[in-house]
Amino acid sequence: MTKTQNMKQLTIIKIGGNVIDNSANLHQFLLDFTALPGDKILVHGGGKIATELGESLGVEAKMVEGRRITDIETLRIVTMVYAGLINKNMVAQLQAKGSNAIGLTGADGNIIKAKKRPVKAIDYGFVGDLDENSVSSKTLDSLLKAGLVPVLCAITHDGETQLLNTNADTIASSVAVAMSALYETRLVYCFEKKGVLKDVNDDDSVVREIKADEFEGLKTDGTVQGGMIPKLHNAFEAIKKGVSAVYIGKADELAELAEGTFGTKMLK
Amino acid sequence: MTKTQNMKQLTIIKIGGNVIDNSANLHQFLLDFTALPGDKILVHGGGKIATELGESLGVEAKMVEGRRITDIETLRIVTMVYAGLINKNMVAQLQAKGSNAIGLTGADGNIIKAKKRPVKAIDYGFVGDLDENSVSSKTLDSLLKAGLVPVLCAITHDGETQLLNTNADTIASSVAVAMSALYETRLVYCFEKKGVLKDVNDDDSVVREIKADEFEGLKTDGTVQGGMIPKLHNAFEAIKKGVSAVYIGKADELAELAEGTFGTKMLK
Repeated sequence: MTKTQNMKQLTIIKIGGNVIDNSANLHQFLLDFTALPGDKILVHGGGKIATELGESLGVEAKMVEGRRITDIETLRIVTMVYAGLINKNMVAQLQAKGSNAIGLTGADGNIIKAKKRPVKAIDYGFVGDLDENSVSSKTLDSLLKAGLVPVLCAITHDGETQLLNTNADTIASSVAVAMSALYETRLVYCFEKKGVLKDVNDDDSVVREIKADEFEGLKTDGTVQGGMIPKLHNAFEAIKKGVSAVYIGKADELAELAEGTFGTKMLK
Repeated sequence: MTKTQNMKQLTIIKIGGNVIDNSANLHQFLLDFTALPGDKILVHGGGKIATELGESLGVEAKMVEGRRITDIETLRIVTMVYAGLINKNMVAQLQAKGSNAIGLTGADGNIIKAKKRPVKAIDYGFVGDLDENSVSSKTLDSLLKAGLVPVLCAITHDGETQLLNTNADTIASSVAVAMSALYETRLVYCFEKKGVLKDVNDDDSVVREIKADEFEGLKTDGTVQGGMIPKLHNAFEAIKKGVSAVYIGKADELAELAEGTFGTKMLK
């Protein structure tokens, strides 16, 4: 995709449990997020509150072959916790810090329409998968143009009344790809490590930059392994589909991370 | 307030537990709501789901002198149920029926900023009161202009990180008053009766129309009594502050109710 010189910049940031579950971390992150210049979208995952609420209500986490299943009771809980408790408290905090945040699920404004995952070997329950037509960039664009900062939680819908639980990493990359038609879009994944590490036991061995054609080599020599493989695969897929760059690193250096002077930067 | 001839029409509809708690009623209401022409905003209350969740979690309803208190645990529950479970399921249903609904609390887009009720004889806890500056009509207007249908739940914020529980009737009338500067605004309260009844024991004795200067007389002769007095007082206050008309009646004849051919119509 060719970028015009005049495209506005958009930063999409995804945070997970390691930021959400610690109120001091979350406070600092939301301050740093508010200070970032330009148009922004925040995507957040769940954290341990949903698990705790499930336990209080006697709803056990259902696992099949090591994978979490979203049955109807779990869907109720994640809808309450992600779209209600976490999302709205985050919005109220962002408002107090000066971001005109608006908290949304994929059902709101039909921003993200998912398809319920087909039942094959495992029935994942009410889990939604995304494809290239899932994200309504037009509606997100009109919110940004109204000066709003969308805060998206990991709940989508199927367009036929059913809410669905959807992976927040996937939401972030799908939104980034869709918005890259309208904005010069960068995608920032905040996670528990400083970046992709050359040596997993050495927190200071961050690989500063990975180009798409270097990815295969890093898999072969073992620098990228385990859970990092799908993460980076998704990052390079997003870049291939129009996202300018993907950054991955710790939330506590957000400004540097989003500028590529900290963490790992993935680019074409 | 003088209305220009060219003002667009806006209909604001408030529903409560009698619609929300019954899935067949809710389904029919949302179909009828979708069929209403022109710009629309839906405001919804709670219903019994929050009480049930509170019971499951062992959080008892706190009452002081017969008034419900919103302590911090109750606020958590209503945030989960109103802003999460009820609001998002309603949005997903509206989307399936063809309304481009967007579900919001007052914190989202800073649409409704409340003040925590001062502690006097009773400490109501995390309850928010509204004044004439609470509603951001500009943000609601930009959502309507983007083709969206705001669905507001009874949660607001104080602008300083605190979410607050706020009466849904009050939200509906405050939003109607604020929007009446931009739209020819009508306000529809759906409740369990067909309208204001001449004889409370006769469901067919609906008073079809009440003008502001007739209200005192109807209080004196006992036609309007009990809980209806504050309801109608609020209605006439809204009319005094710019709302074109207020309708009150049953949700199951919504089209007629919003046109004033059913239920009770209150006007200048």
